[in-house]
Amino acid sequence: MNEIPVGILGASGYAGRELCRLVHAHPGLDLVFAAANEQRDAILRLGRRELRFVAAEDAPLGSARLIFSALPHGASEEWVRRASDAGARVVDLSADFRPGNGPAHRTIPYGLTEQARGAVSGAAIVANPGCYPTAILLALAPLVEQGLIADGATIVVNAASGVSGAGNAPKRELLFGEVTEDFRPYAVGNTHRHLAEMRETLRAWGTAADLAFTPHLLPVARGILAAITVPLRAPLANPLGPWREAYTSEPFIEVSPEPPALHDVVRRNVVRLSAHLMAGTRQPMLTVLAAIDNMLKGSAGQAVQNANLMLGLPETMGLPA
Amino acid sequence: MNEIPVGILGASGYAGRELCRLVHAHPGLDLVFAAANEQRDAILRLGRRELRFVAAEDAPLGSARLIFSALPHGASEEWVRRASDAGARVVDLSADFRPGNGPAHRTIPYGLTEQARGAVSGAAIVANPGCYPTAILLALAPLVEQGLIADGATIVVNAASGVSGAGNAPKRELLFGEVTEDFRPYAVGNTHRHLAEMRETLRAWGTAADLAFTPHLLPVARGILAAITVPLRAPLANPLGPWREAYTSEPFIEVSPEPPALHDVVRRNVVRLSAHLMAGTRQPMLTVLAAIDNMLKGSAGQAVQNANLMLGLPETMGLPA
Amino acid sequence: MNEIPVGILGASGYAGRELCRLVHAHPGLDLVFAAANEQRDAILRLGRRELRFVAAEDAPLGSARLIFSALPHGASEEWVRRASDAGARVVDLSADFRPGNGPAHRTIPYGLTEQARGAVSGAAIVANPGCYPTAILLALAPLVEQGLIADGATIVVNAASGVSGAGNAPKRELLFGEVTEDFRPYAVGNTHRHLAEMRETLRAWGTAADLAFTPHLLPVARGILAAITVPLRAPLANPLGPWREAYTSEPFIEVSPEPPALHDVVRRNVVRLSAHLMAGTRQPMLTVLAAIDNMLKGSAGQAVQNANLMLGLPETMGLPA
Amino acid sequence: MNEIPVGILGASGYAGRELCRLVHAHPGLDLVFAAANEQRDAILRLGRRELRFVAAEDAPLGSARLIFSALPHGASEEWVRRASDAGARVVDLSADFRPGNGPAHRTIPYGLTEQARGAVSGAAIVANPGCYPTAILLALAPLVEQGLIADGATIVVNAASGVSGAGNAPKRELLFGEVTEDFRPYAVGNTHRHLAEMRETLRAWGTAADLAFTPHLLPVARGILAAITVPLRAPLANPLGPWREAYTSEPFIEVSPEPPALHDVVRRNVVRLSAHLMAGTRQPMLTVLAAIDNMLKGSAGQAVQNANLMLGLPETMGLPA
Repeated sequence: MNEIPVGILGASGYAGRELCRLVHAHPGLDLVFAAANEQRDAILRLGRRELRFVAAEDAPLGSARLIFSALPHGASEEWVRRASDAGARVVDLSADFRPGNGPAHRTIPYGLTEQARGAVSGAAIVANPGCYPTAILLALAPLVEQGLIADGATIVVNAASGVSGAGNAPKRELLFGEVTEDFRPYAVGNTHRHLAEMRETLRAWGTAADLAFTPHLLPVARGILAAITVPLRAPLANPLGPWREAYTSEPFIEVSPEPPALHDVVRRNVVRLSAHLMAGTRQPMLTVLAAIDNMLKGSAGQAVQNANLMLGLPETMGLPA
Repeated sequence: MNEIPVGILGASGYAGRELCRLVHAHPGLDLVFAAANEQRDAILRLGRRELRFVAAEDAPLGSARLIFSALPHGASEEWVRRASDAGARVVDLSADFRPGNGPAHRTIPYGLTEQARGAVSGAAIVANPGCYPTAILLALAPLVEQGLIADGATIVVNAASGVSGAGNAPKRELLFGEVTEDFRPYAVGNTHRHLAEMRETLRAWGTAADLAFTPHLLPVARGILAAITVPLRAPLANPLGPWREAYTSEPFIEVSPEPPALHDVVRRNVVRLSAHLMAGTRQPMLTVLAAIDNMLKGSAGQAVQNANLMLGLPETMGLPA
Repeated sequence: MNEIPVGILGASGYAGRELCRLVHAHPGLDLVFAAANEQRDAILRLGRRELRFVAAEDAPLGSARLIFSALPHGASEEWVRRASDAGARVVDLSADFRPGNGPAHRTIPYGLTEQARGAVSGAAIVANPGCYPTAILLALAPLVEQGLIADGATIVVNAASGVSGAGNAPKRELLFGEVTEDFRPYAVGNTHRHLAEMRETLRAWGTAADLAFTPHLLPVARGILAAITVPLRAPLANPLGPWREAYTSEPFIEVSPEPPALHDVVRRNVVRLSAHLMAGTRQPMLTVLAAIDNMLKGSAGQAVQNANLMLGLPETMGLPA
Repeated sequence: MNEIPVGILGASGYAGRELCRLVHAHPGLDLVFAAANEQRDAILRLGRRELRFVAAEDAPLGSARLIFSALPHGASEEWVRRASDAGARVVDLSADFRPGNGPAHRTIPYGLTEQARGAVSGAAIVANPGCYPTAILLALAPLVEQGLIADGATIVVNAASGVSGAGNAPKRELLFGEVTEDFRPYAVGNTHRHLAEMRETLRAWGTAADLAFTPHLLPVARGILAAITVPLRAPLANPLGPWREAYTSEPFIEVSPEPPALHDVVRRNVVRLSAHLMAGTRQPMLTVLAAIDNMLKGSAGQAVQNANLMLGLPETMGLPA
């Protein structure tokens, strides 16, 4: 009762379905439509409720106070504008309004929640971050803020993601028989779409560090783990210090002396972080480890976290921690 | 006919069992004993043959012209010496005689085959390299030889291994229920045993580069993939050039413009390599990717490759490429 | 507030840990101790809470109104009696008081909840059913009640379970490297411990049918699927009818025309059922399919369901459906 | 040298690729073409050889003495006839000429090799059996031949297959994210295509037994395991006797007192069998267990076994046992 009406565009992909589940279970939100052109009329079971996808054209945009768009990159921008014109506030999970993806993002806050609460709260449209950038930028932010990264450094990021990051469109290279017992890098040579998003954000934060980013595909359904090796300006007495300090009261950030694993974060809207000085190098080096569930903190979970802020609800409402 | 008699110590672990299979299928070798104290009297089926493990004390060391030791680190050294005293030549798969593991290695060749054929051929004892070092050192060797690594560089190595690298002793953290759908770093902070092996070898090759090494455990049975990010002295016109040049005629090294995946190398005694310039960094950076089957090129396969050299057999004999 | 104090014995196994998580998240229960001799002092993280296991001898049995025992078969009986003597009501997840496991069960209700609500509600001790029997008996009950099974029939049950059913004690055959990409029958020839439990229950229900039961080990963490082929007394016009009728208002039983899959039930305290007439056989045959999460409806979830009844709480409280 | 020229139609599916590998490694065969319309010009790496797929229309049918067709059901028949008209002998891996798939099979031998050597050796065209029928019929044959099955019995077969059995065409339900940690029955209610193939073969062998067949999809790449529960005419003193007797000298059939597992058979062209009396049933019941690699003994391997017979080569040539 008194739940806020929300809608979902692009509801049939993995992120869209996760949004459906989160909104369905959210005590402050009421799912008034879930649109999915390709799978219109398909049924998604949510506990005892059966949800039928509608065509986007048939979605009552005006009936929702907030709309999530989980449409594909490129297709989302237009629908975000339509939803906004219909009077709804919008959380866009696509890349269309993110930094590094064209000029649109200049007026649209980048919803890395813990770094952008003020801007998110009042925004008409929020660009929800990509999965890799969420893990990596939350890991790097305290080092940047505290000026600990060596001048002219190249930060080396190796990360691995479960297959849900690639969506549920049928592709041969994502078949079970192709992925099981395999592990492979992709977008090698600094060619991943998320690189511009991270670079531009780091630049906006005032750091000149470069990134060398190599993502990999893991034979797991969900989860991202990033290992981020950073040349330091000077040795660090307490390697966990910067994160402990920066994230003391964050409900969705866990800082631990133990390296995180996917099992620590899967099905939870958290990022889990550790940091380790590398023994035996002349240049002081720190390896920061970050793990998230790419479907939650890496997409649908953070989207709901942003929506909670935009709607004046408690930030943690309806989110599994 | 005219097969050379060989024996195996430590035959019941994953590497030992792989050795049993390779020797059994090898047209030039005859397996005269397979010793495994803990599992003595257990039966290993090799096609139609059933092989019974004997106790090490009962193994007829003198009957073999060459003995493989796949005993655990620490336990191997004594048995390698006993086998050598009994007149057999020895390939030791443990770390006991490897660089970085004490003084013993000074007189024992380090059997990274492609870099050490001469020394291996005539050796009484060969220290078979570790799995990670095999992939990483074969990837780095051409850069070192051709002087391409930036002065004072720290090379960042992230690698991931299937569970067979951890052996088949029952440990809770290696149970299926703990590993499936997980991915986790371990030995963080430059603490892995293989680091000294790699460092000392690089030093012997004359390079002053540092290593920052983070290994991970993959939910797969076998395979290692390493992503090695190297600051270069200068940009490289043809990123594959150094490997193409160095490894032209190597039967077990594949150089490819495509990034390697575990599926490319599993059940094959090869290392598969690619190299990629990282776009958009001020310091020129190269990411070299290397994949091996940790049970073959990373242990038992390379051991047989070394044994072939020591026994005057064709280097590729009995090895799946 | 006003939460009922409960304790857990045998808290460190997979079922015990699942109980800890359920009780921790349960709005009506307060976890006052979790005992685990072998892992005493180990820490289990439950959201933001860190739970420390105590030794069973140190567990304040008298402080709990209800105690769950997830101790191993054989070891549980004594502790169940101690807990009962201390004044707590007990749900025993071991086999010790189940039908087919000795005479103790005659005075202890068998807690197949949907078939035993009255007896469970008032009981001092409840024997929580095994995982396979839960799925199979809930599938068979409507056929038995409605007298549909052919006289003298042998019911053929093939079932498969994820590895969590085998517990988390380290055993070589449960290592990831042994289970991945494998599938194997076990306890063949009608030798599984759960067979007596099922036979005696069917007999108590008044049916003379025999069972031929072949369980298998699946390369998944959790979930059980059973395929139950039943010779019918006569063809059945509506194959789903018996279950639709018997289970209309059951909150944790789902009846569907589509065959169930593990993904339908994992992390949910439900059994999902379908039934299919077998085309082209002279003897009318029905195949009933049943899926459960072995950790929830198959053990810890059903245990909490029973505890809810015993404590006068809503039966569905704290249970994910 | 003196290798026999063979060709492959439908080379790009999983079975077709397995055929390419087997023929490439076969010492008596020379692969003169591999046709794959959809993936024409794609490259398959076979060791150091790179094989380019051609369009079927461009395949030089007349240059091959034997042609394998791994084309889809329905599409294969026409190409089998074309290949035959061009003078090649043909092994057809599709269902088009198998029993239960129309009248064509009456003049075409059904290549369940161990049961049909004479007919296969002289045939112009051989219908290679389906994967499930290979395992199940080889398991049942000795019981049929020795008249041990109870009159009017229904044999209950539950079987599970790895995903390669479903081919490599991209389908959403076969994506890694859908299959991992899942297990599901399909073609329930005796509706699987292979049922007619098995029924008609059993009828041809003179038995009147019925089948109730429930297949399942396993989260593994390859392998089939079938559990076959058979009502017996009378108890059997030695449950393994019928298979030991029937298959004494078979190179590709293994009979064992231990239940088989996928790991026993994967990457081997064998069927592995065990048989177990079911304790405690009034009607004597036997459960026969059969495991194969669906890509080898279940398709491409048996196809090469048949080709060896047709070409006068040793039956085991080029096949991993």
